[in-house]
This record gives sequence, structure tokens and C-alpha cells, in this order.
Amino acid sequence: MKRTVTRLADGRDLIYFDRQDGANRSAPDTRTLPPPPLSSELRRDRLLGEWVTIAAHRQDRTHLPPSDQCPLCPSVPGRPTEVPASDYEVVVFENRFPSYSGRPPAEMDGVTPGLGRCEVVCFSSDHDASFATLCPSQVRTVMEAWADRTAELSALPGVAQVFCFENRGAEIGVTLAHPHGQIYAYPFVTPRTERMLGVARAHRERTGHDLFADVLAAERAAEVRIVASNDLWTAFVPEAARWPFEVHVFPHRKVPDLAALSAAERDAFGPLYVDVLNRLDRLFGVPMPYVSAWHQAPVSTDRDLAYLHLQLFSTRRAAGKLKYLAGSEAAMGAFVNDIYPEDAARRLRAAVEKEPSSGADTP
Amino acid sequence: MKRTVTRLADGRDLIYFDRQDGANRSAPDTRTLPPPPLSSELRRDRLLGEWVTIAAHRQDRTHLPPSDQCPLCPSVPGRPTEVPASDYEVVVFENRFPSYSGRPPAEMDGVTPGLGRCEVVCFSSDHDASFATLCPSQVRTVMEAWADRTAELSALPGVAQVFCFENRGAEIGVTLAHPHGQIYAYPFVTPRTERMLGVARAHRERTGHDLFADVLAAERAAEVRIVASNDLWTAFVPEAARWPFEVHVFPHRKVPDLAALSAAERDAFGPLYVDVLNRLDRLFGVPMPYVSAWHQAPVSTDRDLAYLHLQLFSTRRAAGKLKYLAGSEAAMGAFVNDIYPEDAARRLRAAVEKEPSSGADTP
Repeated sequence: MKRTVTRLADGRDLIYFDRQDGANRSAPDTRTLPPPPLSSELRRDRLLGEWVTIAAHRQDRTHLPPSDQCPLCPSVPGRPTEVPASDYEVVVFENRFPSYSGRPPAEMDGVTPGLGRCEVVCFSSDHDASFATLCPSQVRTVMEAWADRTAELSALPGVAQVFCFENRGAEIGVTLAHPHGQIYAYPFVTPRTERMLGVARAHRERTGHDLFADVLAAERAAEVRIVASNDLWTAFVPEAARWPFEVHVFPHRKVPDLAALSAAERDAFGPLYVDVLNRLDRLFGVPMPYVSAWHQAPVSTDRDLAYLHLQLFSTRRAAGKLKYLAGSEAAMGAFVNDIYPEDAARRLRAAVEKEPSSGADTP
Repeated sequence: MKRTVTRLADGRDLIYFDRQDGANRSAPDTRTLPPPPLSSELRRDRLLGEWVTIAAHRQDRTHLPPSDQCPLCPSVPGRPTEVPASDYEVVVFENRFPSYSGRPPAEMDGVTPGLGRCEVVCFSSDHDASFATLCPSQVRTVMEAWADRTAELSALPGVAQVFCFENRGAEIGVTLAHPHGQIYAYPFVTPRTERMLGVARAHRERTGHDLFADVLAAERAAEVRIVASNDLWTAFVPEAARWPFEVHVFPHRKVPDLAALSAAERDAFGPLYVDVLNRLDRLFGVPMPYVSAWHQAPVSTDRDLAYLHLQLFSTRRAAGKLKYLAGSEAAMGAFVNDIYPEDAARRLRAAVEKEPSSGADTP
């Protein structure tokens, strides 16, 4: 794996990840760019005791450009993009419209700056690809990039948690169609992680057991909600799924974050995950909108309590219908799911590739 | 106020609220309806320690019918709706596709039934009205209905919290355009309420003060985020707003729920709230999608800690753009807001009715 660190015209880092050592990554960014925006502001929600980030500069971010204006495609003569090279495998760069950055305003004035970092991960140079169409070696390169960024961002001053994720589909607000994910290096431990670790701590005190390992073992024993598995990973619909189609993917070995995965675990993840993504896309015969979220341990607290896992969920509940978060979910945090988790798992297991010569009794 | 309790053809309750005693509410439901569905199922999210409701029968609920098929309009000869009367002021009935109900399945089999109740509140018989167009006396009737239902549903066995809310706009998934709200009588205290009360308890132990009263006093003193107020209520954008346009409306007197509001407080709420709703609709010159959520005390716990307030928020962040909950919000609970709360408050204060003869310097 070759890793090449360069800089964009406005000083942001850009890092190429290449399988072969020979890649030439010397192409310069020829654009004239304004300096990146200063840090956002953190504010404490006093009623909930949680941080909220106010990032007003993001209001102007690029919004659904036509595909010939895509800023994530490789540069071509006369049209420089965010990636100076004429082609790439996997590339990571600092987000131009970040929710967190290392550039606090000079005048602090009682404001808590949103220090941290936001990065974009381009999964492929092919604008029309998707994660589900990546070949195993390409997924492996993405995993190397995720692990590399998790380790490096965890070492930045003030970073409390690193979150690698993909939002996919205009239905959930994705503003760039090019296959890409994002990484948020937060200056605080996120509310969901705080709650999960609180539950895990209570579970350990009460039972002496690891919460996540107990849940994984229970799902593997129950079988009914398992979607796919191999020797090192299991993908299942959680017993109390919040979303119409939600899948959790756990490594069988407990590790705190992506950087701690072994080479064998990194190899084994891609084929399983791509299989699950393709099953999702086959459910209704249309590309599914989804959020795919890596839950990692905080950088410096509770590393022994946390258990790396991926949470993948779609908001599509039927061919023409989306699940919206309205009153009960958005205001009260009380989720109502219209689909039985066992049904969701059954439908995902049945969503196999249709072969023209296959029998007629496939569901 | 006249309150008339009747039954629909499938046994669900329907209650008319009329300002005058003379209203004749004897029209029968002439439809033949199947029995209402049995209770949903509660499942415990083991990683977060929260209840999730699985309500599979809701998957078939009515979805964006044409306006001449609206089930919330009054009945007309040949087209009976959910409301048998030929006209009404405010009417409440049990939801035909409820997330919670009092009808548990006969075979329980280790399942925790979603006992409780879901009701629909029709704010007006006029299909094309909205809450923002209601006259003060109509809003007062809605408040009577909310207070009545809060008191009555709180007394049902197993109900732990009553939630009155309105989802407005197809953008957030509203499936019926007729102006209406909903009431959920939950069999558990909702996750947001649990967290707020936990913070309020810690605040009281640390300071001896009431958290909500302190926040309200701080906002009234700071002034900069206040949108509107009168002698009994204040509407402000919270300092750490999560949504592009979010307004909290607090009564100045601490009460646990809507049933505890005085007649004067009920009178004073409507004009203020309708003013705020109209300001929202004027921001971009289009009807704003919103969630309007009454946060009430649990039925039997922490009634002294909770403080009734309304949380109103829109997902629209610009004329052509919506705020979506994607990775950071939906998976990590970490909200990023693109609009400064002070800017949102300023814009809402400036969103006054345009008069043709007014000066040219109105923002």
C-alpha cells in the first residue's frame, strides 16, 4: 500500500492510497481557492446535556452539481477538481465545508470552537460506481484508508472520537452523487456512543459480561435475524431495529476500532459487506438510500468497553415509500418501525442475484 | 365547551369538541369496517437501553390520498369518512393504524405488547386550512381537546406519558394533508424525556434550581433569541438549536402538562403560537414543513421536575433545501446546524406581514 500526502491549493491535506508503489501522485492543484473557513462553534444543549455544532459556513456547500461538474472526479485538462490527479484508486482529503476543523477563530470571545477535522473519502474514481460495485481489492484499499485515518485523526489534539461513515442517496440528503464517504473527528464523544457505553458499563457491572459480545452471541444462536456471515464477521438485523432495513455487522473478535483489525479481518469484511449492500439494492430493484456508520471506541476513554461495529440502515420502507423521522422519533426519540426485524432479515436473505436459468420458486 | 363521545363502526372512540352546547352529534358511522389491528410489539434496544415499537400493520396505512378521498373531512352523502358528522369544529378519534392500542393479542408468547393509545386530532373541518390560519377561538378549542385527552389518556392503565404533536408537510412524511395532529399515549417514558429529566435532576441537585426555569430566565434576559412573547408565554430559538429553524414556547408558570394550564394561559397561547407559525411560513414564502411537539411530564414519575413546553422545528434550511438527518445526526446523535440560532431568531422576528403601504426598508 502506497500512501502519498499532498496539499490542495488552499492548504488542505489530500492523501492518495494506492495498491501499487509505482503510482505518480505529483500533479499539483492548479486552482485559486479562498482559505478554508474557520472552525464552527460548539454549544451545549442545556436541556439534554449534549453538544450541538453550529457550522454556518456549510449553508453554502456544493449542492447536487451536474455530473460533469463533480468535484470528486479526477481532474481533466481545463477542469481541475478536488483531486489533482488524472485518475486515482482511493483518495482522502479535508472537507472544504467542514463541521470541525483545526482553524479556530483568532477572537474566541467565550465561544467554544468546533476543533477537529472532517475528511472526504472517495471510494472510486468512477463517478457512476457505488460501494456495492467495488471489487474486493478496492474495498480492501478503502479499509486501509479508514484504518489509517482513524489512527492519524485519533492522535490530533482535542479529537475525542473518529467516525467513518457513508451517506448514500439523494433521498437522505446526499449532495454529491460520486461514491464517497466521510470521516468526522469529533471534539467530543457523541451522544449515541455515550449512551451505548453507559449501558455496556452497567451490563458489565451487573453480569461481568461484555454487552456487545453477548448481543452478538445471542443473534448467532437465534439465527433468525442473520443476513450473512463468514468466519470473522456476522451481519444481522438487530432484534429491536429502529429502521425498516437495518443491519449490524460485527467482527467476531472484539476490537475498539478499525485500526485494530487484523489483515485477515480486513480481507474478510469486504466480500460480506458488498454482499449485504447488493441485497439491499435488490429489495425493491432501485438503489437504496442508506447510512452506513462505523461505531468506534472513543480515543482516550472506555476503549475496553467499546466494540467496533458497523450500523447500516435504509430509510426506504417500500418501493415508493420512505421512513421519515417525524414527531415520535425526532422530538421524543421513540422509534416506531413498520417492519418486523425477522421479516427484514428474511427478505434480505432472499434477495439473491436472479439467474435467468434458476427455478421459479425463488421468493 | 360541549364534549360528545361516540363510537365508530369498528368500536373506536370518536369525540367531538364544540364551543356551543347545541351541536347535534348523533350522526352514525355507516361504514362496514374490519376490527382495528391488535397491539404492536415493544422491543428493548439492548445497546441503547431504549424501547423500540414494532408496528407492522402500519405499513398499510393510508398514504397521500387525493383531497376528494380525505378520511379526515366531514362525511357527505355517499362518502362516509372517519368523521360521521356533516361538519365539525374539533374532533378526536382513535387512530385506525395505531402505534399503541389497548388491544393486546390473545397469545402473548413472551412478547411485550405496545399497550397505550394513539389518537388523531382534526384541527378544523376545512381541508385547506392549517394551524396557522385558525382563529383564536378555534385554537382555544384545540387546547381544550389536548388538555382533555392528556388528562383522560393519563388515567388509562399502563400509560406512562402523553405526547400531543403535529407533523406538517409532505417533506417530513405527512401522509394526510388535512390539518390534524396526533396524540401518542406511550407505555413508557420516552428517551428524550428520560434524558431531559436526568439533566434536570442533576441540575437541581447541584444548584437547587429548576433547569427549565433557569433556561427560560436566561433567554428572557439575553433577549437576542426571543421570537415573540406575551405576559404568560415566551417563544425563543434555543441557544443550541439542533434544527435550522427551531422555536421553544414556554409558559412563564411552571406546570407539568397541558391539563394544568389555567384558562388565562390557554387563552394566551393561541395568538402567540399562530403568530410564530405565520412567521415560519413567511420565511421562504412557502408553507414550512414542521414538527410541533408538546413536552409533558410523565404520568406518574418526576412530575415536579418536568416543565411543560412546546418544541417547534422545521427541516427547511433554505428555499430549495431541506435539512436531512444523515450520518452524524441519525447514527451518532451529534447534530450539526447550518444556521446560527441568533440569525434564525432575527429572521423570524423580521418575518412580519408585508403591508402594501409599508416603507421600503423592511428586511
